[in-house]
Amino acid sequence: MIPDKVVIAEKLAVLREHWSPRIVGELNGQHVKLAKFQGEFIWHAHDEEDELFLVISGSFEMQFRDRTVALREGEFLIVPRGVEHRPVAAEEVCILLFEPAGTLNTGNAGGDRTVVNPERL
Amino acid sequence: MIPDKVVIAEKLAVLREHWSPRIVGELNGQHVKLAKFQGEFIWHAHDEEDELFLVISGSFEMQFRDRTVALREGEFLIVPRGVEHRPVAAEEVCILLFEPAGTLNTGNAGGDRTVVNPERL
Repeated sequence: MIPDKVVIAEKLAVLREHWSPRIVGELNGQHVKLAKFQGEFIWHAHDEEDELFLVISGSFEMQFRDRTVALREGEFLIVPRGVEHRPVAAEEVCILLFEPAGTLNTGNAGGDRTVVNPERL
Repeated sequence: MIPDKVVIAEKLAVLREHWSPRIVGELNGQHVKLAKFQGEFIWHAHDEEDELFLVISGSFEMQFRDRTVALREGEFLIVPRGVEHRPVAAEEVCILLFEPAGTLNTGNAGGDRTVVNPERL
């Protein structure tokens, strides 16, 4: 009835693939996901979903068309629906995501980096 | 259009009151809140809301009627709607909460520890 607690470090230890968010929790129709980013992702937006990025370790930049926001451990950013963005990580960064269940990592851009049914970790 | 990033430590530095969650973000009808717990809270449940507790620093216990879950930094627990719970913190703990906008800290129990309109930090 009550889900087990999630030890974030244990989940991250078994997550090897970059840019492939995995589900670690679900509540109120939202998913909690963990992801590792390294390198450059693609420009995309989510038509219907706001997305929260919380840095667990490392750092990265969220690029917008008109500015860039640098994020470090212990910081989070909410990207509202409809806003084009591109995460870029010079080195590996570990991220916790909050977003509606069903949110695609590539939003409305699609393409071969899309993870259609993220696994649970 | 894009909210500023949130530096969790900066927000926590100005939050003095225990058991008084403050709003630090909003997305998809959900609130991100920060709170400091110390001591024992009251038994309560939320009829319609699942609630996520992520430990930013320190540790606490979430008591349920049939068991207790100990939580430390970097761990989170989702308490499903309808499940009675009571957080207890022997020492001060800093928590990030993720729950539907409008969720009351005391759920269906009410009483004088209810924070009706949490401030934004």
